[in-house]
Amino acid sequence: MTPRLVEVRKNVLKRNDELARALRQRFRHAGVFVVSLVSSPGSGKTALLETTLRTLGETYRVAALVGDLATENDAARLLRSGAPVRQIVTGTVCHLEAEMVERALDEWDLAALDILFIENVGNLVCPASYDLGEDLRMVLLSVTEGEDKPLKYPSIFNTADIAVITKMDLADAVEFDLETAAENILTVRPGMRIVTVSSKSGQGMEYLFKLLAQGRSSKRFAPPPDGQILLG
Amino acid sequence: MTPRLVEVRKNVLKRNDELARALRQRFRHAGVFVVSLVSSPGSGKTALLETTLRTLGETYRVAALVGDLATENDAARLLRSGAPVRQIVTGTVCHLEAEMVERALDEWDLAALDILFIENVGNLVCPASYDLGEDLRMVLLSVTEGEDKPLKYPSIFNTADIAVITKMDLADAVEFDLETAAENILTVRPGMRIVTVSSKSGQGMEYLFKLLAQGRSSKRFAPPPDGQILLG
Repeated sequence: MTPRLVEVRKNVLKRNDELARALRQRFRHAGVFVVSLVSSPGSGKTALLETTLRTLGETYRVAALVGDLATENDAARLLRSGAPVRQIVTGTVCHLEAEMVERALDEWDLAALDILFIENVGNLVCPASYDLGEDLRMVLLSVTEGEDKPLKYPSIFNTADIAVITKMDLADAVEFDLETAAENILTVRPGMRIVTVSSKSGQGMEYLFKLLAQGRSSKRFAPPPDGQILLG
Repeated sequence: MTPRLVEVRKNVLKRNDELARALRQRFRHAGVFVVSLVSSPGSGKTALLETTLRTLGETYRVAALVGDLATENDAARLLRSGAPVRQIVTGTVCHLEAEMVERALDEWDLAALDILFIENVGNLVCPASYDLGEDLRMVLLSVTEGEDKPLKYPSIFNTADIAVITKMDLADAVEFDLETAAENILTVRPGMRIVTVSSKSGQGMEYLFKLLAQGRSSKRFAPPPDGQILLG
């Protein structure tokens, strides 16, 4: 990057941080617990979110914002859960920014919500630097992507609070090595909580829902036990 | 994006285009055919490249540059093929740039090569805008990512010359719908050539090698027949 680009980017990030701080205060004031999802494209964010909205929607007032460069397909898909959903179309931008979230929330009564999910653009790099004011950031890694990804994309794992290993129903077919994957995650972020799930088979989902509900009721996430892998 | 960021980005891209043009002339002069690979993280670029270097290496003088934010793991893995390989570590940058390729080629005798592969950073957004001086750009889409990705990441499909659908051995397990995926690719880029492969089972690989060899000998890629899906 040229020095000028570095400088401009620094200002953009600083402005984003300020907006994210304001958003976080607004969320806190409204009493809404905000969870964001980041991952590579096709790791199963939308599938996980669809099941989550459906299940947690039975107990909580849930809603979602979903980011994509193009199409409103994900919003259409998530609306089937019955929860309020809004699509953010970013055009050429490879991540969500606090300002986009703020604009998308326009006219939404946050106090009428218990949990708000924000699905970021599918990207293992760009979203890392942008705080969205969320309480909890989940990074998803599907078993089909390979155990090495945490080492190759350390920033996104470093800025997340939980790692969710998805598509566990395919683990055998792709000879996924959970131990190595967990070791790589913990190398990048020691002590990170790791949850294994499958939206398809339902494996681990109940445990994840429990974590989210627990996070919501404490409005802060309990620090993970050292290096413990929690198989849901 | 702020107007200032847009302007700086425009200058960066212009400079990259100039460098890429110079690189392309240098490749042409040396008689080396240059193929780049772009995809989401974990779509199988390195696995495909490993097999490709091994097989095409029996007939051609092949080499590879491989980009990642962190680690030299991919270079180490590809070196097992016996081909010369260099890793480009980008730090926080989510794509390769012409300048990085130029620097990585320092002291390499390009005239001693027949085919040079450039594996970009795993990202379906950022690499789209950066010309690397390649003759042929392959975009990979694994069956596990879902059929909708071309519609959600149109730019990367638009700037590529061939779409390679990978991990076909998992197609049944994930209920992959090839017809829908192909339709989505062709919606974004009418007439694009689509090849289906599995590095694991070998399905389609021979056909892909033939395409690459043919591209190399003509040093230009034959225009694809209208909307034809080529099952290797």
